[in-house]
Amino acid sequence: MIHRPWRTRDRHTLLSVPPWLEVGTESVELPDGRVVEDYLWLTHRDFANVIALTPEGDVLCLRSYKHGPREVTLQFPAGLLRDGEDPLGGAQRELLEETGYAAPRWEPLGRFVTDSNWGGAWMHAFLARDAALVQAVEHGDLEDLEFFLLPLDDVKKRVRAGEVKLLSSAAAFALALLTLD
Amino acid sequence: MIHRPWRTRDRHTLLSVPPWLEVGTESVELPDGRVVEDYLWLTHRDFANVIALTPEGDVLCLRSYKHGPREVTLQFPAGLLRDGEDPLGGAQRELLEETGYAAPRWEPLGRFVTDSNWGGAWMHAFLARDAALVQAVEHGDLEDLEFFLLPLDDVKKRVRAGEVKLLSSAAAFALALLTLD
Repeated sequence: MIHRPWRTRDRHTLLSVPPWLEVGTESVELPDGRVVEDYLWLTHRDFANVIALTPEGDVLCLRSYKHGPREVTLQFPAGLLRDGEDPLGGAQRELLEETGYAAPRWEPLGRFVTDSNWGGAWMHAFLARDAALVQAVEHGDLEDLEFFLLPLDDVKKRVRAGEVKLLSSAAAFALALLTLD
Repeated sequence: MIHRPWRTRDRHTLLSVPPWLEVGTESVELPDGRVVEDYLWLTHRDFANVIALTPEGDVLCLRSYKHGPREVTLQFPAGLLRDGEDPLGGAQRELLEETGYAAPRWEPLGRFVTDSNWGGAWMHAFLARDAALVQAVEHGDLEDLEFFLLPLDDVKKRVRAGEVKLLSSAAAFALALLTLD
């Protein structure tokens, strides 16, 4: 089966909250000629997620209240990319800011769009190995971030038990296992 | 470390596109007393994702152009929950509509919020086993959905190679492997 893209005929903005978010509608033409008016689009800032392992195989973990799920959640280093920042650079910066660790070995785990229909943002996931403490933590996040190391198998159990409430964090960890497999 | 929730003091709506999406701002009070004005919130419809396996261990796969990433992508059965629909019921309905398959054995893989800070929607992921064809496909999606079976190891390779561009689909598959492990 040949999968042809949709064609955007026209595009309007409904809401703009720079630098965070924009929402609008498009008139799109499907491959069979049908036209859908007012198809939503949504864009927010791309971000990076890092699953980082120490030489001993422990995972760099964070825990905090997050206002998205309105719950306390286990999570992994992550953050929004700055304007013009490349994904790997952003991932390395966030790891350093949130944990004080740096790593010599990085592998991309893929890029994924957060909203299948409207777009959202691209998440860039990375696996970092041989991570080691190099400086003090200096994240500027609003949350009280608790940092700790856990053995890989312990994190697997906690993900299965539902301790990670964030889709991006859960996805990055599970995708890292695919590469570590 | 005790992680206390933030408190919402006030809440405004900036954009409402029923039944799809709402965006607004909140005034939130952090545990240390700081107040953040105009913290964004975003809500859209909860959805379910299904990783379904045949008795032979093949994975039920779909492929189509998706307008979110503006790319053709490998994906797995999924869809928005209807008003009042429970997540498992929605997952079973979407599997049936998109593939014509039903399954006798279902396991939840977790619920995850799509936007860590603003909320977004809850994704409910499921693993379905012993799936079998029971009726003709009758999805009402705008996309031309191509349906096929692939061996589990083949899907692993394709996910690692970047053929799945949707965060929700990639996450559901990688999380299913954690349970199948």
